[in-house]
Amino acid sequence: MKKMNLAKAFTLIEPGPVVLVTTNDGQKNNIMTISWTMVLDFTPKFAVTTGSWNYSYTALRKNRECVISIPTVDLIDRVLGIGTCSGSDTDKFKKFKFTPLKAKHIASPLIKECVANIECKVIDIIKKHDIIVLEGLAAYYDSSRKEKRIIHAVGDGTFTVDGRKLNRRKMMQTKFPDLIHFFSK
Amino acid sequence: MKKMNLAKAFTLIEPGPVVLVTTNDGQKNNIMTISWTMVLDFTPKFAVTTGSWNYSYTALRKNRECVISIPTVDLIDRVLGIGTCSGSDTDKFKKFKFTPLKAKHIASPLIKECVANIECKVIDIIKKHDIIVLEGLAAYYDSSRKEKRIIHAVGDGTFTVDGRKLNRRKMMQTKFPDLIHFFSK
Repeated sequence: MKKMNLAKAFTLIEPGPVVLVTTNDGQKNNIMTISWTMVLDFTPKFAVTTGSWNYSYTALRKNRECVISIPTVDLIDRVLGIGTCSGSDTDKFKKFKFTPLKAKHIASPLIKECVANIECKVIDIIKKHDIIVLEGLAAYYDSSRKEKRIIHAVGDGTFTVDGRKLNRRKMMQTKFPDLIHFFSK
Repeated sequence: MKKMNLAKAFTLIEPGPVVLVTTNDGQKNNIMTISWTMVLDFTPKFAVTTGSWNYSYTALRKNRECVISIPTVDLIDRVLGIGTCSGSDTDKFKKFKFTPLKAKHIASPLIKECVANIECKVIDIIKKHDIIVLEGLAAYYDSSRKEKRIIHAVGDGTFTVDGRKLNRRKMMQTKFPDLIHFFSK
C-alpha cells in the first residue's frame, strides 16, 4: 500500500464506487459500507451521507476522523456482509477477515485488502441533511493488486462492475489543461 | 419517456453516473455536465456540487429548479462537449442536437435523448461547501432505449462504462426487506 499523490485522491471517489469507511472509537475499530458519497473539491474534500442510523456515526462525530477504503469486485460479498450487520455486536475486521493497517495521521485504520485508502478528518457536519464533510490527509494505492475494478451500487440490490475504459483526455484538455497535464505525465 | 415511480429515482444517481443538469433562466434553456452528485434520501433527495464557476448556477439559484438527465455511453462526446463550453455564449441544445421536452412541474426541460430524467426543485443551498440540495418531483425512464449503460468519470480525463451486473438482492434482503421487495416485484 504505497502513498499516492493527495491531489489525485478525488479520482478514487469521483466514479461513484461502493466504499468502506473505517472508524476507531478509542477502544475498537469498526467498518461501515456506504454508497452515498460525493467529491466536493480537488484539494481533496468529500461529502458522505450518514447519520445516527449507522453505529459508526457516534465515533465519526466524536473523533472527527475516518478512513475511506475502496474495495474491488472480488470483495463484494465481504463488503455487503459488512453493510448488513452492526459494529455494536460484531468485530467486522475479524468476521470478514480484513487486516487493519496503522494510518499515519489518525487512529482509524486503513484496510490492507482494499485497492486504495484515504485518511480523512471531519471538517463539518451538516445535521439538517445528514451530510459529513471530510478533508483528505493522505492517500494510498495498491498498484500491485491485480483486480482493480470497483463496484457501483444501483440501490435495488444489484451492482455494476467497471467495464470498458474510455480516454477523453484530449477533449477535456480544453477545460482542464493543468489537471489533464498532471494526470497524463 | 414514460413516468417512473419517484421512489425508484434514487437508483438513477446512486451508481455515480456523469449527469446533465438542465436549467431555464426565464428566457433560454441551458445544460451543464457534472459528475459530483450524491443521494441524500430515498424520498428522493440529492446533493450536487456546483457554484458560480458554472454559468447554470445563476439560473439554479434564481429559479430554484433543474432537471437531472442521465446520458448513456453513446452520448459521451456530446456530454463532454457540453461540459467544455459555456451557456453564456452557446445554445447547447442546438449545438449538441439535444431535444428539450416540456417538464410537468418546472420550466427546465427534460432531454429526450437521455435514458432518464428527474425534475427537481432546489430545497437548500449550502454556500460554504458549494452544495445544492435537490428534491425530486417526477422521474422518467426510456425503457425502449437499447443502450442503457451509463458512464462514470474518473476525473483524470478517462471514463468507465458499466460492465457486468451482479444481483445481491437475497443478501441485501436482511437489511432492506421492504426496499428489496419493492424492486423485485
